[in-house]
Amino acid sequence: MRTLLLTLAYDGTEYFGWQLQTHVRTVQRVVEFAVEQVTGVATRVTGSSRTDTGVHALRQAVSFSTETKLDNETLRRAMNATLPEDVVVKEIRDVPAGFNATRDAVRKRYRYVILDGRIRDPFSLRYAWHVPVELDVAAMGQGRGALLGEHDFSAYESTGSERESSVRTIYDLTVERKEMDHGPRVVIEVEANGFLYNMVRNIVGSLVYVGRGKYPPSWIGEVLESRDRTRAGMTAPAEGLFLMWVKFGAGEGS
Amino acid sequence: MRTLLLTLAYDGTEYFGWQLQTHVRTVQRVVEFAVEQVTGVATRVTGSSRTDTGVHALRQAVSFSTETKLDNETLRRAMNATLPEDVVVKEIRDVPAGFNATRDAVRKRYRYVILDGRIRDPFSLRYAWHVPVELDVAAMGQGRGALLGEHDFSAYESTGSERESSVRTIYDLTVERKEMDHGPRVVIEVEANGFLYNMVRNIVGSLVYVGRGKYPPSWIGEVLESRDRTRAGMTAPAEGLFLMWVKFGAGEGS
Repeated sequence: MRTLLLTLAYDGTEYFGWQLQTHVRTVQRVVEFAVEQVTGVATRVTGSSRTDTGVHALRQAVSFSTETKLDNETLRRAMNATLPEDVVVKEIRDVPAGFNATRDAVRKRYRYVILDGRIRDPFSLRYAWHVPVELDVAAMGQGRGALLGEHDFSAYESTGSERESSVRTIYDLTVERKEMDHGPRVVIEVEANGFLYNMVRNIVGSLVYVGRGKYPPSWIGEVLESRDRTRAGMTAPAEGLFLMWVKFGAGEGS
Repeated sequence: MRTLLLTLAYDGTEYFGWQLQTHVRTVQRVVEFAVEQVTGVATRVTGSSRTDTGVHALRQAVSFSTETKLDNETLRRAMNATLPEDVVVKEIRDVPAGFNATRDAVRKRYRYVILDGRIRDPFSLRYAWHVPVELDVAAMGQGRGALLGEHDFSAYESTGSERESSVRTIYDLTVERKEMDHGPRVVIEVEANGFLYNMVRNIVGSLVYVGRGKYPPSWIGEVLESRDRTRAGMTAPAEGLFLMWVKFGAGEGS
């Protein structure tokens, strides 16, 4: 028996998120189908991040156990030949027995892309949130500081999750206007040891309230301290969110 | 009567190209429909470039005559509210009576995007040509030189066009490996006073033959001099091609 770690990129637009659900097409389902097609054995796979409907991944990490004798490059090619073209295995490597992509993840980074201003862009429909006014990126940058470090992030968690603790540590949070392929975008990146349900999208929605001038930068920290879910801004839509990468202990990473 | 110049961006994936055809959805058709909805008058519009099925535009130029009293910003907003979301009016301005976006164009620039190497990318499906081997960009760059300047480009023209002359002037042609939103891409840009049918895609297909080592860089110039349509490389697929902009005499541009 071997344990493998897959690095997976996908455009989440056409999927009901990562996690297996009955009757709907999810990324986990098409990945498990591909593993079964290629190895001949029905196999459960484990993803580091339960991305929601419409959320994308640049380097999702997926682990599974298999008895296949295929070398990793052959397996990668065979899986990509089986997978739909909006899901791509970038890399496969062996990891120690017992490795689990959910449990062993120690750090993840997400990116959120916003197109601000009155003009839409046809190439950003699936990959950015269009906010139809110009955002004050400097104000958003001031607001972000309160979120760095270890905090109880309950106020930025959507209901419906069942995690025991709401304490997480944000190692990095950047807000910048950046030149991208189709023009300037407001890009927010958040790196943490874990994320609560919709935490990035709730933080982004709240930062956008600040960027629109609805609240001062200090409001971001006030919401955090309140631990009150009803105080945060709207949940930013899924299409702007990308899982960038996942890191594990002992130097593993996606 | 006023004459207006529209700057238009579109994702060409879902369209049978720019030009009006019976029974199929084209960009010209949806633009004419939007103008009629907004002004109340059926209106013929003229585009600078007849982009083919699946080809994209960042700044296509479109002219038309209208008696509308709406100011340009109101017209732009109203058109964008009517247009499908993969076609966007970026800008509208008044131009002199008699202005015609096809006839008066003096220079255009196209970009072609290639994802090379064995790994596919889910975010580039509609926006790049995947060539599954690493391309020799230096060799492609050497080959390109023969195309600069005024030449008879018959060899790089696809059959089916009815233009009188095959002589065009290429002012600029760049081949470079460039860091884009989803990783490095080989980007080819061509700027000329006009383009024959499929000229950019035939040049790109031929440069890729050189990049793959099928022919030496000098072959690009030999094909040009032969004026023989059967000698050029394959026509590169539509999805990698973007019309970047159009320039007119007297400083107008899209």
